[in-house]
Order: sequence, then C-alpha cells, then structure tokens
Amino acid sequence: MPRYRLTIEYDGRPYVGWQRQSNGPSVQQALEEAAFRLTGQPTALTAAGRTDAGVHATGQVCHLDIERDFAPAKLRDALNAHLREHLVAVLEASRVEADFHARFSATGRAYLYRILNRRARPTLDLGRVWWHARPLDAAAMQNAARVLLGTHDFSSFRASECQAASPVKTLDRLDIARQGEEVHMIVEARSFLHHQVRNFAGTLALVGIGKWSADDLRQALEARDRRAGGPTAPPDGLYLTRVTYPTERGGP
Amino acid sequence: MPRYRLTIEYDGRPYVGWQRQSNGPSVQQALEEAAFRLTGQPTALTAAGRTDAGVHATGQVCHLDIERDFAPAKLRDALNAHLREHLVAVLEASRVEADFHARFSATGRAYLYRILNRRARPTLDLGRVWWHARPLDAAAMQNAARVLLGTHDFSSFRASECQAASPVKTLDRLDIARQGEEVHMIVEARSFLHHQVRNFAGTLALVGIGKWSADDLRQALEARDRRAGGPTAPPDGLYLTRVTYPTERGGP
Repeated sequence: MPRYRLTIEYDGRPYVGWQRQSNGPSVQQALEEAAFRLTGQPTALTAAGRTDAGVHATGQVCHLDIERDFAPAKLRDALNAHLREHLVAVLEASRVEADFHARFSATGRAYLYRILNRRARPTLDLGRVWWHARPLDAAAMQNAARVLLGTHDFSSFRASECQAASPVKTLDRLDIARQGEEVHMIVEARSFLHHQVRNFAGTLALVGIGKWSADDLRQALEARDRRAGGPTAPPDGLYLTRVTYPTERGGP
Repeated sequence: MPRYRLTIEYDGRPYVGWQRQSNGPSVQQALEEAAFRLTGQPTALTAAGRTDAGVHATGQVCHLDIERDFAPAKLRDALNAHLREHLVAVLEASRVEADFHARFSATGRAYLYRILNRRARPTLDLGRVWWHARPLDAAAMQNAARVLLGTHDFSSFRASECQAASPVKTLDRLDIARQGEEVHMIVEARSFLHHQVRNFAGTLALVGIGKWSADDLRQALEARDRRAGGPTAPPDGLYLTRVTYPTERGGP
C-alpha cells in the first residue's frame, strides 16, 4: 500500500491534543475521519509529536497508508476538502518509502514558544500566546538558557506523567529573543520529555523577571527533581514548527 | 475635563464594526461600557477610523473625556480590567490637550491587508487573513499599484454607501510584498474612502493572478466608476495599524 507523508497545521484550541481521547475531539480523529471519508477505509495516522491540548502546530508531520494511488497534491486538496469543519489543514503531501515512520524516523523536532509581554491582554492572539504582563529581560533569559544546551538529565523539567524511557535528552538549540511586544523561544532536539518546552518557558520567565539567576537555573537542572524546576507555562504559546528526517537538510 | 487619548487593539470578528449599531456588539460600545463602569458617568468615545464589521485594529486611536484625573497607565489598566469579556484592549493611554480630536486631528492612517496565498485553508489565522488559493505575483501587483499613488479621483474603488464629501484622496504609500505564504499590502493616506483598501486588495489580486495588466488597473482608475474597479476583498485581512497626528514624527 502506498505510504504518504503529510505536513499539518492546526489551531490547538478546540482539540484535546493530537491523540484520540474519549473526552473530546482530537486532531488525529479529525484527520482520520477525513481520510475515511476520502477512501472509504478505516485509516490510521501516526504523528511525529503528540501535542497536548491547546498546543498548536505549523509543521506537524504524520504518515498514513492508502490503498489508492493518489497524486500527492490531489491527496492534500481532497483531505482539506473533508477538513472544512476543522481548524486542521494539510499543507503538503508526498509519497514516501514504506519504511518511513513519522515518529520513529524523525531526527529532530523544533518548537516555538511565544510570550506576549505587555500590560494589555491579547485580543487578536488570545489562546495563541502566553500573556506575561511583567517585563521580561530576554537577554538574561538567553544567557541563562545556555546551561540547558547539550546532553543532560532533564528530570527537573519533566512532567510526572511522562512516558519516556529516560530523562536524558540532548538539547541542540535554545534561542530566546525579543520580537517587539513578544519574547520568542525556539528550541530544537531529537526528542523532548513531556512538558519539557513549557517547563523551560515557565522557568526561564522566572529568570526574565529577575527572580532567578542563571545560577539558580543551573542548580535546578542539577537537582534532577521536578520540584526544583519552575512552573509549567500554558499550552497557548506553544507551536510544533518543524520535524526533520535523515534524508533532509535541516532548514531554518 | 481632562481628555485622554487611547491606542486600541481589537479582533474584529465578534463585532459589527467600530461604531454602535442596533444589530450587534460594537467595539465602541465595549469601550464606552468599560468607561462607564470605571467612572460611573456616560462617556462617549470618538475614534480615528470607523472600521467595518470583521476589520481588525492593532493601532486604532480614540479619545474620551473623564472628570476624574487618572494617571494614564492606571486608566489603561482600569479600562482593560473592565474589558476582560471582550477582544478589545487598551495598549496605551495618554493625557492630551482639549483640542485633540482622534478623528479630525489625524493627518495619516495606515492599514495592513494580509492575504494568505496557499492551497490549504487558514487554521490558526482563520478570520484574520483573506485566503487566496491561486498563486499571486506580488511583484506584478506592486508594479501595477504605482498608478494608484498620489492624488486621484478614486470613485472606482469607493463603496456606494461612502459618505465622504469628495472621491478625491491622496495615496501616500502602497507597498505589496510577499512574506512567506502571505502577501502583505501596506497603504497610507490622510484618509480613505469607504472600502477603498479592500477594493484595492480585491482589484490588485486580479493583477496578481495575471487576469489584469497594469494598464487595466490604470484604465479602471481613470473610469471613475465603481463598476470599472475589481471586487471587494473580505474584511478578514484588514488591520488599522497606525494613526498619526501632527505633533508626532511618522514611524515605520
């Protein structure tokens, strides 16, 4: 059966997350129902990252097998026609080899975390940014964040319900910069622990307001204990922006 | 009575427009009710631009008179506290002279029009961009748009319900450029006719898809007849981004 790779964009607000759950609509369900309506066959989708409720994606990747041979652009347009009721869209589709696996073949994942840092609440970006009214020192956050780069036991930034086999991960990039009224955090790694990016954001905000020093952050990391880390930032500001695979060059 | 100037941001989707109307909630009503709850006095607000239903603002300006003497930052925060149920926020407040008038003192207005130009529908930006699936040649649009610069009778781009005394306006800027998947149009003038920016966007999209040449656009302008202009683009992509006043230097 031909295997297809899809690049997916979604607004996480109306969904319980990527994965199917009994308590509400999921992105996976929306896409699987679209594939069923298109093919008449129950079709399972596997994604690179199982985003949580309220988390957005501009570059989620998933794969599916379809008996019929579709031109990739036709598959994209046909799935989108069946997704009209949803805040989910297929940006790109391509034929891939049978051994391509959206989750297990992935060698890198990139996330953006957006903080709206001003006195006034968000209006146009409500639900799409973390609103943080106290001024943040983005340069201090960037400076402190360097201690997180590389291979570490990230237990201090790991949700209790995390199912990863090991708390040791390698952080390849963590860039923080002010963009007008917003502070953007870009993180890249092969894979992440559950809530790792949101726990980074919540903790680095403590550095941003001057409550924590760079040394406090180092000590929190070295404690290897979730109680030593800072709070979990809300899902609103989190975007899965890119998944990379070995055959590709990593783009910006 | 002290006069205050407010800079306002709003998501236009839930509103019938800036101005109070009997058929639904308006931005003006939301702000006037917040001012009433704060002061206990009926308070009228006057805005620089009466945006239509569904049109957004990131830099609307309005003024109001309040008997009490507020520190501007306190006024901003107090109004925002009363705006929590709304997609309207006060970004800045300042004390101004009694002869400042948000509408009549304004010497320039800037709008951004965002077109999402890709095959897939918007998800995160639904209602905040005009979705245009056919590829647009932004360079051809920019080249053709030059004919609109300067002082002209813009009757071909004027809504029939326009209340302006004259169809002659001076267009100071019209820049069109691709930004990734989007095409952005930035326009600046002292003032605009009703639907002028949306009629520019709808007409220039005809140039973008190659249906109209730059010469077709010139002929449409010279016809001074709405029937010669192109279609009206939807409100979704339109943002009032800045209003300038004589005491200020024009920013970017």
